[in-house]
Amino acid sequence: MTFDAMWRDLLPVGRDARTGGYRRFAWNAADLECRAWFRAEAERRGLRYEVDRNGNQWAWYGGSAVAADPAWTPEDAVDAVVTGSHLDSVPDGGAYDGPLGVISSLAAFDLLIERGAEFRRPLAIVNFGDEEGARFGVACVGSRLAAGVLAPEAARDLRDADGIRLPDAMERAGYDPERIGADQELLGRIGAFVELHVEQGRHLVDVDAPVGVASAIWPHGRWRFDFRGEANHAGTTRLEDRRDPMLTYATTVLAARKKARLAGAVATFGKVAVEPNGTNAIPSLVRGWLDSRAPEEEVLESVVAEIGRAARERAERDGTDVEVVRESYSPIVEFAGGLRDRIAGHLGGAPVLPTGAGHDAGILSAALPTAMVFVRNPTGVSHSPAEFAEAADCLAGVDALADVLADLLSGTPDRADGTRSAEGPAA
Amino acid sequence: MTFDAMWRDLLPVGRDARTGGYRRFAWNAADLECRAWFRAEAERRGLRYEVDRNGNQWAWYGGSAVAADPAWTPEDAVDAVVTGSHLDSVPDGGAYDGPLGVISSLAAFDLLIERGAEFRRPLAIVNFGDEEGARFGVACVGSRLAAGVLAPEAARDLRDADGIRLPDAMERAGYDPERIGADQELLGRIGAFVELHVEQGRHLVDVDAPVGVASAIWPHGRWRFDFRGEANHAGTTRLEDRRDPMLTYATTVLAARKKARLAGAVATFGKVAVEPNGTNAIPSLVRGWLDSRAPEEEVLESVVAEIGRAARERAERDGTDVEVVRESYSPIVEFAGGLRDRIAGHLGGAPVLPTGAGHDAGILSAALPTAMVFVRNPTGVSHSPAEFAEAADCLAGVDALADVLADLLSGTPDRADGTRSAEGPAA
Repeated sequence: MTFDAMWRDLLPVGRDARTGGYRRFAWNAADLECRAWFRAEAERRGLRYEVDRNGNQWAWYGGSAVAADPAWTPEDAVDAVVTGSHLDSVPDGGAYDGPLGVISSLAAFDLLIERGAEFRRPLAIVNFGDEEGARFGVACVGSRLAAGVLAPEAARDLRDADGIRLPDAMERAGYDPERIGADQELLGRIGAFVELHVEQGRHLVDVDAPVGVASAIWPHGRWRFDFRGEANHAGTTRLEDRRDPMLTYATTVLAARKKARLAGAVATFGKVAVEPNGTNAIPSLVRGWLDSRAPEEEVLESVVAEIGRAARERAERDGTDVEVVRESYSPIVEFAGGLRDRIAGHLGGAPVLPTGAGHDAGILSAALPTAMVFVRNPTGVSHSPAEFAEAADCLAGVDALADVLADLLSGTPDRADGTRSAEGPAA
Repeated sequence: MTFDAMWRDLLPVGRDARTGGYRRFAWNAADLECRAWFRAEAERRGLRYEVDRNGNQWAWYGGSAVAADPAWTPEDAVDAVVTGSHLDSVPDGGAYDGPLGVISSLAAFDLLIERGAEFRRPLAIVNFGDEEGARFGVACVGSRLAAGVLAPEAARDLRDADGIRLPDAMERAGYDPERIGADQELLGRIGAFVELHVEQGRHLVDVDAPVGVASAIWPHGRWRFDFRGEANHAGTTRLEDRRDPMLTYATTVLAARKKARLAGAVATFGKVAVEPNGTNAIPSLVRGWLDSRAPEEEVLESVVAEIGRAARERAERDGTDVEVVRESYSPIVEFAGGLRDRIAGHLGGAPVLPTGAGHDAGILSAALPTAMVFVRNPTGVSHSPAEFAEAADCLAGVDALADVLADLLSGTPDRADGTRSAEGPAA
């Protein structure tokens, strides 16, 4: 299977005919079809297929020394090189975010076999489950569980919009939700993880390079703002008698943009729920979710605090109440310096850039050396059907990934040679 | 059945245990239970029960001369006096909006019989179907269809949130949707319609009166604002690269409040739909519904035009598009002057006040003389579980309605004596 053939195979899976966007959500029919595809690709290549306790899919290659040894199992792997990404999507997402990394990993493996590369370390290709968090509201569930930064009890409490619990969804898909949780045995086999991903901005366009290397992931988080007022008749209630939380919400949306701009951060209200949500009713509740990210944790904290202050000031005027709940928070991720420099150097001084997006590679960076390779995105658009990368850039990404893997597989370990980041965050 | 007993009977029907609000939507189980209750109350009193072609329920009394004549049918009615309201609710509505009018009508009839009043004209008590429009999005469907201001074809196209068509919902409830449409024969029997309703504001509190009479219904309408931008990643898209329609929406919400305040009107955004509505996605579409009402049609038009202008100005800055679609519009209703003055006079100079809410009495005002009696609402809250009226005020409402009906039933016709409003709007 060439890159193109794999791409064509996946392209129709879970695509909505009306929007052209993808709806591959954890454990739904489209996601299971993607997972069946991944398994078939692994088996087609003679790779050892396994699903870990948290539902992540792995395709293992023992390495040149043991490739023909039927007694070798993935449990025997030591200091393995891992590459891969995810196949699920945000609601109406694009075709590249996730799948480009998985397909490029399989294509890079094919290229290495074709070149007769020596695998002095084991290799695995991974498809992490539930990266986008589109269904249950928490991103990177598969890697968070494996790394022990999401407690199994917390994961079991997650529900989708229809009230279906995450363990029930997993069980219906044929997996045992009793086994989820930190997986030190699995992570202990891995020496380095490299994730290729379409860039979600236009840095590589600006510097005119098809491929780049990640320096860091901005700290980011999600805050739920509950604005409470009093439901009342929209036609008969005098303006001065109202306690309309939509006004407080609107002011907060505009404040978020302004505070983020002044601080060099980003802040977005992209999701809203209103009660009772009737045309002729003043709302009793407007719930808005703030996504905010910044280059430094102190900046992020101050931006969110200022947005909360603006909300409360307006609430006093509107006679409404504001409650702010932090639903998730990811500290800054500085990718393993040694691994990053090794990759950038090997790619002929590819540009090194930070990103505002969370990734499984970020989650795992606290447990093992991780790195990311970005492929140029001409418009910068992401999480949308308009997400795109040129075919030539995708192939340049496969070539770069193959080169990086060949270098890592040539034998120099990453854990032992000090490439593991000392300044990485605690879990 | 006393007022209290009827009130207790209806109180639990369709009430949501969590919110305490009502969910009696056209043709749903709670609505059908209310309708069965109405039918039983009609039959208990020996009234002639019929459902008209548009699903409105009627309980007829032929009058003193024909009360004992089994050959008399509602089709024989001439110059009838009609009273009543509706039993359906908005989402999480209160107990009073609608049911107070229906129960008070039945109680007033009981009072007149008890007093041995002479019925020189026929009387009917009505429960109009689908007044709130909570399910299919159009208010006063029953009276609009009967009056010919809603075309049967348009009604047949209406769908609820689950995609169920209005005619299918009607048919499942046991009614023939093929028969809906203008009903001149029915309206031709009626000489006057008086609707009692809980006040949806605090005018009667301010003037310290338990009961008032309506002068007019403010012109009002519903406009859908579609704000379109570009879906993109909330974490990685630079602020200057965004086309975020949430910002345009927020600005428009605040502009609506300001423009309404300056003009002495009301304007409300109470319903919103966002696509894709993901926490980490800049929206591609924010759809907000504006409800606006004003004392004069010119004022309403100018307020909505100014809100549209503010939206477009901000859209230019945000790189978004705005489309405004008028979904419904009701011109000003001036209730029949003669009938109104007759009622106010008969109630000892009860205060006469306008209202911002639409009612079946407003719809029918173009076809026949109509009037409204309001009962004091101590908080002014309406369309909410907190909606309330004191028991003493409710009984004062029943007394007032009985007095008004006795006066009308005493024989002076309303159509003939010029009480039909000359300045009422065309249909």
